[in-house]
Amino acid sequence: MKLLFLTGTRADYGKLKRLIEASVDFKAEVSIFITGMHMLRRYGDTHEEITKNHLSSCNLHKFINQNIYSTMDEVLSKTVLGLSDYVKECKPDAIVLHGDRVETLAGAIVASFNNIPSFHIEGGEVSGTLDELIRHSVSKLATFHLVSNFEAKHRLLKMGEAEETVKIIGSPDIDVMLSSELPEIDLVKKHYGISFAEYSILLFHPVTTEINDIDHQINTVLNGIAASNKNCVVIYPNNDNGSDAIIARYEKLNDQFKVFPSMRFEAFITLLKHSMLIIGNSSAGVREAPYFGIATLNIGSRQYSRVNHESVINIGFDEKTISKAMFGYWGKKFQPAMLFGNGRSAKNFISVIESVDLKTTSIQKHFVNY
Amino acid sequence: MKLLFLTGTRADYGKLKRLIEASVDFKAEVSIFITGMHMLRRYGDTHEEITKNHLSSCNLHKFINQNIYSTMDEVLSKTVLGLSDYVKECKPDAIVLHGDRVETLAGAIVASFNNIPSFHIEGGEVSGTLDELIRHSVSKLATFHLVSNFEAKHRLLKMGEAEETVKIIGSPDIDVMLSSELPEIDLVKKHYGISFAEYSILLFHPVTTEINDIDHQINTVLNGIAASNKNCVVIYPNNDNGSDAIIARYEKLNDQFKVFPSMRFEAFITLLKHSMLIIGNSSAGVREAPYFGIATLNIGSRQYSRVNHESVINIGFDEKTISKAMFGYWGKKFQPAMLFGNGRSAKNFISVIESVDLKTTSIQKHFVNY
Amino acid sequence: MKLLFLTGTRADYGKLKRLIEASVDFKAEVSIFITGMHMLRRYGDTHEEITKNHLSSCNLHKFINQNIYSTMDEVLSKTVLGLSDYVKECKPDAIVLHGDRVETLAGAIVASFNNIPSFHIEGGEVSGTLDELIRHSVSKLATFHLVSNFEAKHRLLKMGEAEETVKIIGSPDIDVMLSSELPEIDLVKKHYGISFAEYSILLFHPVTTEINDIDHQINTVLNGIAASNKNCVVIYPNNDNGSDAIIARYEKLNDQFKVFPSMRFEAFITLLKHSMLIIGNSSAGVREAPYFGIATLNIGSRQYSRVNHESVINIGFDEKTISKAMFGYWGKKFQPAMLFGNGRSAKNFISVIESVDLKTTSIQKHFVNY
Amino acid sequence: MKLLFLTGTRADYGKLKRLIEASVDFKAEVSIFITGMHMLRRYGDTHEEITKNHLSSCNLHKFINQNIYSTMDEVLSKTVLGLSDYVKECKPDAIVLHGDRVETLAGAIVASFNNIPSFHIEGGEVSGTLDELIRHSVSKLATFHLVSNFEAKHRLLKMGEAEETVKIIGSPDIDVMLSSELPEIDLVKKHYGISFAEYSILLFHPVTTEINDIDHQINTVLNGIAASNKNCVVIYPNNDNGSDAIIARYEKLNDQFKVFPSMRFEAFITLLKHSMLIIGNSSAGVREAPYFGIATLNIGSRQYSRVNHESVINIGFDEKTISKAMFGYWGKKFQPAMLFGNGRSAKNFISVIESVDLKTTSIQKHFVNY
Repeated sequence: MKLLFLTGTRADYGKLKRLIEASVDFKAEVSIFITGMHMLRRYGDTHEEITKNHLSSCNLHKFINQNIYSTMDEVLSKTVLGLSDYVKECKPDAIVLHGDRVETLAGAIVASFNNIPSFHIEGGEVSGTLDELIRHSVSKLATFHLVSNFEAKHRLLKMGEAEETVKIIGSPDIDVMLSSELPEIDLVKKHYGISFAEYSILLFHPVTTEINDIDHQINTVLNGIAASNKNCVVIYPNNDNGSDAIIARYEKLNDQFKVFPSMRFEAFITLLKHSMLIIGNSSAGVREAPYFGIATLNIGSRQYSRVNHESVINIGFDEKTISKAMFGYWGKKFQPAMLFGNGRSAKNFISVIESVDLKTTSIQKHFVNY
Repeated sequence: MKLLFLTGTRADYGKLKRLIEASVDFKAEVSIFITGMHMLRRYGDTHEEITKNHLSSCNLHKFINQNIYSTMDEVLSKTVLGLSDYVKECKPDAIVLHGDRVETLAGAIVASFNNIPSFHIEGGEVSGTLDELIRHSVSKLATFHLVSNFEAKHRLLKMGEAEETVKIIGSPDIDVMLSSELPEIDLVKKHYGISFAEYSILLFHPVTTEINDIDHQINTVLNGIAASNKNCVVIYPNNDNGSDAIIARYEKLNDQFKVFPSMRFEAFITLLKHSMLIIGNSSAGVREAPYFGIATLNIGSRQYSRVNHESVINIGFDEKTISKAMFGYWGKKFQPAMLFGNGRSAKNFISVIESVDLKTTSIQKHFVNY
Repeated sequence: MKLLFLTGTRADYGKLKRLIEASVDFKAEVSIFITGMHMLRRYGDTHEEITKNHLSSCNLHKFINQNIYSTMDEVLSKTVLGLSDYVKECKPDAIVLHGDRVETLAGAIVASFNNIPSFHIEGGEVSGTLDELIRHSVSKLATFHLVSNFEAKHRLLKMGEAEETVKIIGSPDIDVMLSSELPEIDLVKKHYGISFAEYSILLFHPVTTEINDIDHQINTVLNGIAASNKNCVVIYPNNDNGSDAIIARYEKLNDQFKVFPSMRFEAFITLLKHSMLIIGNSSAGVREAPYFGIATLNIGSRQYSRVNHESVINIGFDEKTISKAMFGYWGKKFQPAMLFGNGRSAKNFISVIESVDLKTTSIQKHFVNY
Repeated sequence: MKLLFLTGTRADYGKLKRLIEASVDFKAEVSIFITGMHMLRRYGDTHEEITKNHLSSCNLHKFINQNIYSTMDEVLSKTVLGLSDYVKECKPDAIVLHGDRVETLAGAIVASFNNIPSFHIEGGEVSGTLDELIRHSVSKLATFHLVSNFEAKHRLLKMGEAEETVKIIGSPDIDVMLSSELPEIDLVKKHYGISFAEYSILLFHPVTTEINDIDHQINTVLNGIAASNKNCVVIYPNNDNGSDAIIARYEKLNDQFKVFPSMRFEAFITLLKHSMLIIGNSSAGVREAPYFGIATLNIGSRQYSRVNHESVINIGFDEKTISKAMFGYWGKKFQPAMLFGNGRSAKNFISVIESVDLKTTSIQKHFVNY
């Protein structure tokens, strides 16, 4: 079985990594199409980490799908062309896609337009920004849906997907989180040069549908944190339209903050586990943080209605509220909540691909009325 | 209000034309992005007809999105680039998209990625082939849904679209069908050089997901018709992957058949109205034909479960069955059925755009759980 | 005979227009591929002027080859794709190219790669900037060379082009200059709202190979003119890399200056004829201005060694020198010099295409050692 | 010093390899952009050989620039985009280009449009087909010219290139030919399964400018060889337009012939050294073969006037002439001739890059009149 994995961000790679390793163990012939932020120096050239991890066991194909002048639709267009040429050489039996990014949509298009079955990881969830539109659009193109929890499955069934194509496998990042192989916090701090005793983590992505407000948004968040006088580890946003403005602000931060273009997923998880709280609008706040029982200050519309849990505090763009919440929730502990699986998604993934006969699978779908 | 219409096939233009005219009457500033089959000599250079109809009242932009070597994903990619560049110059307030073609998906991507609201005509329906995947994928990207009937609306609501964004306007082709301005049958026959007294109409499109079977399929259909000895007016398929094989067969047909690369929509409707039956797998068979009470021999999976009506006879790829059905249903009359609106879709379309404030409309969507 | 003309700037259109009209009179079937700056609102949407002039007599195809984020190599790449798709539909017997722009190179590539003979207008000249490289690169791809003067011809022969493929026809803009149909100066001033009694003309293009120096260059030039206190009519640069910086400066100019994004070629010629001098680095200064005997203050390297004539004063980037030269040469008259033909280039062009058998012309070339 | 090498065919890699190795030894930071035929399974996936040779010492970037449906201008366009994105990440001080292929032109465009100096290897030579146009067109864009012999240098000077930019380094393939490390003939025959005692070598490329005649040409050549009854080792053509027809014919050859999609350059050289003669239209016949004193039956226009030497016998497309020449020149020995250097091109290459200050080199050129 020839499986092609598509990865475009450090976040999706953090998740796909376990599935890739499990597929190699399962004796699948694995190829990885590495594109998006991985290929950009500005975001840490993370393609090198992927190469180190999989060079001996997988076919790697790297594709630069953008430069700093590229608009998102140009990125989509280029990714479609590059992946299309690659599948004509690689001839995979199936393509594994993750999430809700522009590269995911490109992958779903190339798969369906070339009659190649696709597995879509973590569909059926809800959020804000353009990602919300892309995620569901991909679901309606994808052949199989390997989702995180029952809510996601239920949503896909309502959308007309056939029950036998929707499988709950849990979120692969939870496998990493619950793994016994996470690095020690001291090692992580040393490796990344973080000397803060206590710290929060800030991850803030642009909301493409609110792009004109982005300067105001990031200023408000940074001022709120600054006013709290608490140390903060900051990680760059995804490279969506608007990320330039955020990064420009980060480059002027003082010593209260420590900024990284990217971080290895395992190191990030350890850092998160020992943080006082997480702030921003990243999915890490609403998905991973609750597993450790720490507070999430979730700002704005990006993770709109994604999770309803007591440790996730939704707040608007207001400096004082942010600064006050930094104090109020600093180090506070909640009951841990396993909302996105129990750490066995890689195992479940293999069970699914084992049960499917890709040679006879058609990409044709029929809307199911339940 | 600046409205941009996207048209890629004679079929969608046949429908959009009425909406374009109504928009001009409504004093909207109308632009038309003309691409796809319209630009190809092989398919009759139908961009010339559009130019003739709208040059004085609309901005026309023509874009060749393919050559004979282009694969469908390349066509998508090129259309995204071409339309993206155009909207940056044209700056429309909204884009009007129709149906389920590769150009439609390109349009929905450019609209959502550039924060431009979109109106999607005839979403929410079901069929077979890749169109089925594209149609729903477009729905999850589009801002407003202007559908043909209640079933389509119901399906979109289940898919999570907000009720206030889904409006039943009916199918615009019905406006043409029920119009008093259709040309006379004698004029049509004369213009196109059709001398048959009685005739059927064949419209057969490739099913992209069954592409390896296409030779066998078209041969079976043509042999079945040939065996019936009944005259047949044939119109070229859409230019999906696989259309080459069908056209190659058409070029060898004898005098029992009369073949056209394309036909003006109004002329086609008159021809359909006076035909003995329609055969193939076109949407014309399941949507328009029932309005005239004539029989539709619907072959294969393409219009899978689109319509359940007594005049639509579903049959498989079997020469004898086809030939027998040609005899059995020749000239048979059924009770006419208005399944896709009552001919007022253009009027309804204007009511919708009149009621929407495009300046404040966000393309952001939130999944609605009913 | 089917001739396809390619135009990407107001400047090349000003020249090609006469050849297009002559070709129509000659009963050639003429198509025009309109792209580049013509299609951009920022540069005055000059495609509309072309449409008005030729809609009734030529096939027009418009293609947007860039947006504000496009780099020059992306523009080349897109133009190649767009023109390639167009020639596959249009099937011209030959393509007529002009000058030394990115679109010209794209045209020469598409012509030679598709075995279509090409006529290159105004090859064999020398200048500075990237244009110099492109011009000669195009010459080595082009089939026929229709040049301005003997020097250009001589250079092409040295470069290995066969003598029978190099014809001196003169520069087509001279046809316009020497035409009796030029508009009156009063009409031009009124139409463009120019109230200056005496004025200079500034045309300054970015030198792509000196791009880091562009801010300093344009500031020096504008300060030099400002210091002279003389009125100045300014026209936007071509859209090469670096033009943004120039335009940004133009937007802040005071009433001493009058700025235009573009101007009709005939109007420009009349304006030039009545100007006190021309300043900048445009080819208009070294080619057209000497015909009227007015002074050219030619600044920097762009027109490097293009013309050696007493009315062309070469100066560097120095405010004082510029300001002083503005005074010194204001209204000074030189002996007119016809360096680029005598106004019969359109007639000569027709003689050439009349004498060539395009059906049997091969694009294959052999280096000729003289 | 960061050097970026561009390779698109096994032939140019065979040459560039020595320069790459010498550059690594010289402590340059070397990147290789691997594209074109290297990336296609059909042509032997030769990117794998490059990876094996340089993975530990160079940065490798692989880019698929075509699929089986791509036309040559599409390949150029895609290569420009892919290389443009890569140089924006890689930021080389110079790009090293070889020869006269579509990828070479793409490289020269990206280099000059991005203000990056380029070294062009083996410019200034003459041949037939589109390559002739591309080679000289590249020369007029390239910054430095590292040529094979005095004739090439002389031609470039005539074309207006400055003397200090044109250096004779010899042809790098001669380094390989004259190397003491060539594999033994027995090993080569064993490795490739060649059991012929005596054999000729056929290398026949499509002449893109004679594309309609390609079937006739290859049939004539193969029939001529077949009639001679002499064994023949055949190697696939380059993937120019027309190669499909040649390959289709090769697939039907009988045991008199032994066909390979590609061959390692060193193995090919050993095989050539021990062959009875070489036939076809490859540059190997006119460049390398004379070094070994064997006969070259050079057919048609492709190597038009490239070399004038007694061992190169120019013949037309005529079966009898070919068959007769196969007999007449079989195993005939000529005086070896070193027309393209003496095997020290890698050493000379390093001397050149050592002597150039890339940081201050401008890509701007000025036509030199000698």
